[in-house]
Amino acid sequence: MYRHVHGKRVLVVTNERVAPLYLDKTIDALTRGNPNVTVESVILPDGEKYKNMDTLMKVFDKAIESRLDRRCTFVALGGGVIGDMCGYAAASYLRGVNFIQIPTTVMAQVDSSVGGKTGINHRLGKNLIGAFYQPQCVLVDTDTLNTLPDREMASGLAEVIKYGLIRDAEFFEWQENNIEALLARDPAALAFAIKRSCENKADVVSQDEKESGLRATLNLGHTFGHAIETGFGYGEWLHGEAVAAGTVMAVDMSYRLGWIDESIVKRVNKILERAKLPTTPPKSMTVSMFKSIMAVDKKVADGLLRLILLKGPLGNCVFTGDYDREALDATLRAFSKS
Amino acid sequence: MYRHVHGKRVLVVTNERVAPLYLDKTIDALTRGNPNVTVESVILPDGEKYKNMDTLMKVFDKAIESRLDRRCTFVALGGGVIGDMCGYAAASYLRGVNFIQIPTTVMAQVDSSVGGKTGINHRLGKNLIGAFYQPQCVLVDTDTLNTLPDREMASGLAEVIKYGLIRDAEFFEWQENNIEALLARDPAALAFAIKRSCENKADVVSQDEKESGLRATLNLGHTFGHAIETGFGYGEWLHGEAVAAGTVMAVDMSYRLGWIDESIVKRVNKILERAKLPTTPPKSMTVSMFKSIMAVDKKVADGLLRLILLKGPLGNCVFTGDYDREALDATLRAFSKS
Repeated sequence: MYRHVHGKRVLVVTNERVAPLYLDKTIDALTRGNPNVTVESVILPDGEKYKNMDTLMKVFDKAIESRLDRRCTFVALGGGVIGDMCGYAAASYLRGVNFIQIPTTVMAQVDSSVGGKTGINHRLGKNLIGAFYQPQCVLVDTDTLNTLPDREMASGLAEVIKYGLIRDAEFFEWQENNIEALLARDPAALAFAIKRSCENKADVVSQDEKESGLRATLNLGHTFGHAIETGFGYGEWLHGEAVAAGTVMAVDMSYRLGWIDESIVKRVNKILERAKLPTTPPKSMTVSMFKSIMAVDKKVADGLLRLILLKGPLGNCVFTGDYDREALDATLRAFSKS
Repeated sequence: MYRHVHGKRVLVVTNERVAPLYLDKTIDALTRGNPNVTVESVILPDGEKYKNMDTLMKVFDKAIESRLDRRCTFVALGGGVIGDMCGYAAASYLRGVNFIQIPTTVMAQVDSSVGGKTGINHRLGKNLIGAFYQPQCVLVDTDTLNTLPDREMASGLAEVIKYGLIRDAEFFEWQENNIEALLARDPAALAFAIKRSCENKADVVSQDEKESGLRATLNLGHTFGHAIETGFGYGEWLHGEAVAAGTVMAVDMSYRLGWIDESIVKRVNKILERAKLPTTPPKSMTVSMFKSIMAVDKKVADGLLRLILLKGPLGNCVFTGDYDREALDATLRAFSKS
């Protein structure tokens, strides 16, 4: 791993849950055979509700107090929250330093560590402050998933399922045959699912890094999902749980628009249920909460909310603001109280 | 101007001193002939001591509360502090939105608005958090200098003098003949000095945007100067005042190393005195304050402090860590108490 380290100084950014499990191993891997490297670490509180400016400042404080210079390397050791925050810190510290991702959750291994989106939440919306900043490398060790809680495991599968729905029908069908193996952490099944997910993501991001269009399709279910995360309270639901319910809503809306067959609606509900993921938003979400939070989504352009919706046979989607508002309203009413 | 505006929404970021003078005019210029554009504004407190994360959050709050989307444009209306903060906010808001600079001080017109360096201060050091982010355009109106306080005027001239010293001897000689005209705000002299400064800066930045080497030479006097700003307290001295004293220190050190003639030392002191700029640091600065603050400078690499020093005939400099430590110590002792 050390050949990806720039300079002699490393800052590992991790959290209270991951540090006792993997921090020592990571420091060992960074310094073994490389005695000139010195490693600092900063241990942040765990969870989406700490993905904010106050926590980010702890990373800057540690880096500056340790007198890390521009030739240093920041290492994100943890899930998506750690990767997003460490990446944004690396993008901003001294206007940009080297950055390595070591994702330890399915969510981070299949999605958030790949593609260079970094950032923090604002109290009014998710990921509103950040940068596009690519890691020097992403180091995936599926053994880290052995210590992952079941709920986190399922959360990551929501993103795996997403890739099948938006662009890879064959992968979705494989998932329908292997979802229980994934939940049981079968190593071969996990390795295949992670590799296939990363290939899908890399393919999309390489065509549209800054999300002018195509990349947005990776956000199937995320606009509804972000509204759930923001409205219900950061960290109450895991990101993938919110995305699962959001995916059901996007699929419902696609069906109301007449863009997909009912069979797809059923298959999506079925696989998410088998993955032990929620298929409806929390009961406290209202139509007006969805609407007001979705109005600040990054995919709004000149006042128009654009959504990722399925259209055509399984594995096809569109990113569009050109849809009947009635369908959106009907979906919101069907899934939340008015 | 409005052809540089992206989308229909603009956020003008300015401060309490500039807003009463130029905010209405700017809004008028942005909307005249362009009735679809709507303009929001956020007025920040004035001064370097507010160039921090708390103030930056006010920009994000305003942008999010106004529901500005990715197609919006941020406009920096003010001096270097406003430009640096607005630029970093534009780089980070929704992971990057369009950005226009309207600099209203000499400092910003000749230096900080050009080249894409943005950022905020940390209590332990200047500009340690930020991004390289280029503005869509920089709009200079020298009429705004008519309302600039004399101290701010002189502060900007420190950067004008810098260009002469590091790479443009002919420009330095012109300044020796025109420094009083500049202080008196002679329009032709100002226009020439601003144009020639921007040309010098653009030439350097176009060769080395991310400061791998050459661009660092624009920081003549800045390492000592940043130590003064951080140690003496942000905003006690203006940036250019600290740079002026820092330039004298860098020139003194260059002479101690035997790299320049005494005549250059005298000419630098003379022109800075005529520009009514300080040529020594504040009396409260100590050798150890300089050393501890300079140790976190962005130009430190693998523990070694690199400095911009003059070497050879007027108009030549080097960026190097290869110098006799004794000369640095002697300069620090000569200019501050131990």
